[in-house]
Amino acid sequence: FKVSERHLKLYRLYQNRWGQAALYVFFFMHLCLAVFESPAVEGLEMSYWVTMLMETGILIFYMFRVTHISIFTPLTRFWSDTKNILIVILITITFLDMVIYIGLTESGIYSVRWSRALRPLFAVNFPELRQIRRSFRNLRRTLSDVVNVLFLFFFSLAIFALMAYKLFGGRGLTWVDGRPYFESYWDSIFDLYVLVTTANNPDVMMPAFDLSTYYVIFFVVFLGICFFIYMNIILAVIYNNYRKHLKNEVRKSVFSKRQQLSKAFEILAINIAGKKVVTRTRFVQLMKFLDSKKNPALINVFWIVLDSDGSDYLEKVEFLKVADLLNVEVSEVVDRTTLIGHFFPTLYYSKPSKLLCTIVKNRFFGIFFDVLTLINAVVIGIADNDDTWDDAAEWVFLCLFMLEILLKLYVLGFRRFFKKIWNVFDFVVIGAAFIMGLLEAVVADEQESRLSLDVLLVLRVLRLVKIIGSVNRFKVIVHTISKILPSLLTYGAVMLVFYYIFAIVGMEAFQGLVRFSGYDAGSELYCGNDRLRDSDFWRNHYCNNNFNDIVHAFIVLFELTVVNHIFTAFVLEVFILEYTASCQG
Amino acid sequence: FKVSERHLKLYRLYQNRWGQAALYVFFFMHLCLAVFESPAVEGLEMSYWVTMLMETGILIFYMFRVTHISIFTPLTRFWSDTKNILIVILITITFLDMVIYIGLTESGIYSVRWSRALRPLFAVNFPELRQIRRSFRNLRRTLSDVVNVLFLFFFSLAIFALMAYKLFGGRGLTWVDGRPYFESYWDSIFDLYVLVTTANNPDVMMPAFDLSTYYVIFFVVFLGICFFIYMNIILAVIYNNYRKHLKNEVRKSVFSKRQQLSKAFEILAINIAGKKVVTRTRFVQLMKFLDSKKNPALINVFWIVLDSDGSDYLEKVEFLKVADLLNVEVSEVVDRTTLIGHFFPTLYYSKPSKLLCTIVKNRFFGIFFDVLTLINAVVIGIADNDDTWDDAAEWVFLCLFMLEILLKLYVLGFRRFFKKIWNVFDFVVIGAAFIMGLLEAVVADEQESRLSLDVLLVLRVLRLVKIIGSVNRFKVIVHTISKILPSLLTYGAVMLVFYYIFAIVGMEAFQGLVRFSGYDAGSELYCGNDRLRDSDFWRNHYCNNNFNDIVHAFIVLFELTVVNHIFTAFVLEVFILEYTASCQG
Repeated sequence: FKVSERHLKLYRLYQNRWGQAALYVFFFMHLCLAVFESPAVEGLEMSYWVTMLMETGILIFYMFRVTHISIFTPLTRFWSDTKNILIVILITITFLDMVIYIGLTESGIYSVRWSRALRPLFAVNFPELRQIRRSFRNLRRTLSDVVNVLFLFFFSLAIFALMAYKLFGGRGLTWVDGRPYFESYWDSIFDLYVLVTTANNPDVMMPAFDLSTYYVIFFVVFLGICFFIYMNIILAVIYNNYRKHLKNEVRKSVFSKRQQLSKAFEILAINIAGKKVVTRTRFVQLMKFLDSKKNPALINVFWIVLDSDGSDYLEKVEFLKVADLLNVEVSEVVDRTTLIGHFFPTLYYSKPSKLLCTIVKNRFFGIFFDVLTLINAVVIGIADNDDTWDDAAEWVFLCLFMLEILLKLYVLGFRRFFKKIWNVFDFVVIGAAFIMGLLEAVVADEQESRLSLDVLLVLRVLRLVKIIGSVNRFKVIVHTISKILPSLLTYGAVMLVFYYIFAIVGMEAFQGLVRFSGYDAGSELYCGNDRLRDSDFWRNHYCNNNFNDIVHAFIVLFELTVVNHIFTAFVLEVFILEYTASCQG
Repeated sequence: FKVSERHLKLYRLYQNRWGQAALYVFFFMHLCLAVFESPAVEGLEMSYWVTMLMETGILIFYMFRVTHISIFTPLTRFWSDTKNILIVILITITFLDMVIYIGLTESGIYSVRWSRALRPLFAVNFPELRQIRRSFRNLRRTLSDVVNVLFLFFFSLAIFALMAYKLFGGRGLTWVDGRPYFESYWDSIFDLYVLVTTANNPDVMMPAFDLSTYYVIFFVVFLGICFFIYMNIILAVIYNNYRKHLKNEVRKSVFSKRQQLSKAFEILAINIAGKKVVTRTRFVQLMKFLDSKKNPALINVFWIVLDSDGSDYLEKVEFLKVADLLNVEVSEVVDRTTLIGHFFPTLYYSKPSKLLCTIVKNRFFGIFFDVLTLINAVVIGIADNDDTWDDAAEWVFLCLFMLEILLKLYVLGFRRFFKKIWNVFDFVVIGAAFIMGLLEAVVADEQESRLSLDVLLVLRVLRLVKIIGSVNRFKVIVHTISKILPSLLTYGAVMLVFYYIFAIVGMEAFQGLVRFSGYDAGSELYCGNDRLRDSDFWRNHYCNNNFNDIVHAFIVLFELTVVNHIFTAFVLEVFILEYTASCQG
């Protein structure tokens, strides 16, 4: 960080909210390009000239950001940061790939835009998305601690597999479908590994069990060690290490913050009576500079809090607290009258209006609407999809709930009403349902109705969620979930990075091999591929699980994440089969 | 606890090692009775007169123990302890059940020995097995904390099911096997619940997915909330609460120990210079009384440690430390010469013997035998079951490993050799293989050979486990596992209690409904039950999973523990079908 007026301005320009938002938007657009690039989502394909033009624009924006960083950072600092180097390399590689692709395609040679798989890596390297990078680092470190347990696990697996192979191998036993049982060592390892995932329990032990009951001991001991003990130890190791590394990360970031602050103090401080201190004028200047809209009264409050010994200047220890102080949310006490009460005081403070207020604030008002919600749930449950009476009932409920919201709005005023998250939820769900219902009634378009009806239905059922807010014992849990949600979202982003990379690779490798074309018309279709004629994949109607575009690829990857190893085995089988076949053909 | 000489003697008699061992043995026998009672394991059935006679004997022993407790405990204390009351009630109930059973059976009426399901409850109530009771209590408390999250989970499930029912219900969609898709509300709840267990992923979403890609959003959101978030929260709550309750338990037991000790101090103390203290003579008496074989030198050490201020008598604070001190394992430094070195010093300390010692203690000696073990593994792996050359190889390996053990024994001496757990393991595995191999070669009985060959094979492969002991990075993990093993065993015992109860109930309800009689001879057998003709249960060859005797019942319950919910569904289906049918027929 070069310390000078000009660089500071540049830095502040860089940290500008709009610049950051633009980066997020451009990054999102960059990822979304995969929807339009071949193999594209059906009906959305664009010529590669269009997508490449857009990508070039995005890359130029990235370059602009990096250049911006490089200006206010000392050059040696800039180039010693792997993140910056990686971004520059990524941009170069992408441009190179684009040029090669255009060249090859125009000469009529089939070519692959392999650099697309690298796109999410921009996220990990831009300083704005450092949360994701931190989670990555945390995951990586945790993994390296688990590795020993995993080794031991696979070693045990190998020994048990050897035992199983020797015990059951040459006996002429078969699986239910006639395959030989524990025929080779590798089969044994695979079958026992699948057993640890519980997918082939108890099928894997039945042939041995039928031969002799004693053989069950083998499987019980195996599961006891490899399933119960190891799985739990791995879980415990992950949990413990994750916590440890998280603590370290936080400690480090606090430490670096303190270092930065003490640097800032050195710059701002002047010498008074042999001590380095920051005077009040300087402090006010600093605050104004950081946020020009800040209330002078608030700055005053800050000063009084920081200057704990009343010496009228800040010493270093006092100054270091400024960061904590800026994080404290200051709730300015505001006028409590509602907007209506402000503008129409005679109306709002009249007798019937006051009566209304006491009614709405009464406990039974809430209970009444909770009960109404429950009745609504029952009505939704028993109403047939073809009935017409439930449409009328729906309008009654909708009007009642609208009335509730309006009353609450009137009594509490806008600000207090929207402070509660449940009220916001209520407002959105009911309001959207009301508007959509009106539109539906007015337009009554037959074609679009399915999607909008579905949305209406979801909104209708979502209304019931409100009950959670009124049950006390659930409040703690909901609060906990809302607290951990941000960190969960970070991990969602990390997952997305992996998903994206795998999806792109999968699409390039497997596109078009499996096609969905319905199951009624012609059973001779076999997912558009004759080689799947007798596969479980076809029999289970899995044709829609393919890599033909980015949406389908994401769905398949998600299904694989929610592990069901039988499905995994099917998918693996199909794609390995397909890929080897297409390489030969 | 009545404080008197006689009662103390009785108490010590009760705490006698042999009495406790007898209780364990009798309790184990009591549980094992189920093997011989009808429905018994094949070929082991005994007349109910025999088993009842045995059970009566065991119950009399229980009564004897309880009476013993009641003598040295004040009567009011004895009857205010629910454990004692429960034991008395259990004994009474069992006798009552036995009398009723005899009466009914002798009059030719079918009767059920229902009190058998209560047998494991003795374990929870006898003070000797208080570890199990403590785990039970801990589990129960943890569960009560999880209940809120479970409620919220099922509430969310109900809302999602309502949404799914409304969205997919009336569409005329079908599952792969032609069943209607999300046909009723209860079906929806069940299908979504199974989805949370991942068993029907992705089958459950394929019909909706085929209809429109947008419907996948529903399943992704559902799995995100109900699978990823709730499951992890439940896990975290269990983990946290378990730790909390465990801490409380430990704290409580430490507190009660301190209380007991301070009572003991009040009794033993005399007044010296206005302070209550324990003199040295009394302390020595106490120690001698507790363990008459204790080394006087050791008592002296204890005294010096406890009397930290050198006042020659113990104050209360000092005395309270005695419990911790008694737990410290004092390793008496013993003579390091081996037995052979003691009796044949000229031989043991001769030059060639010393050379041997340095060779054996050398690092490469261990490495050589590790490599040999690996070679052994490879030989086992590649040897065909029919080959004869591997028998010869096996003898070579066996002799080499025997040589290793003998050499180590010679060099290290018995005591130091058996101090290492890996050496004991090695000794048992190799020794047993050697003896069994010799027996096999001498007797060469064709009939028994399968079981003994299997055991030999297991022993042969187990040899490879030794390698874990020589890899440093595994040592920590093995050490951890061996540390947590005792508490895992306690939970194993708790599981056993549940298993036993369910097994007995299952046997009484389902015995003989499903029978295994092979799959080759007559496919018309259908697990001995024509109603299973078209069931998946029969098709998957699950006939051996039945409740016909206690061993089979335990195996089925174990398989159900290693959750694979498809299997669970099959088993439920069969037994519900069977039971309703047999109630009607």
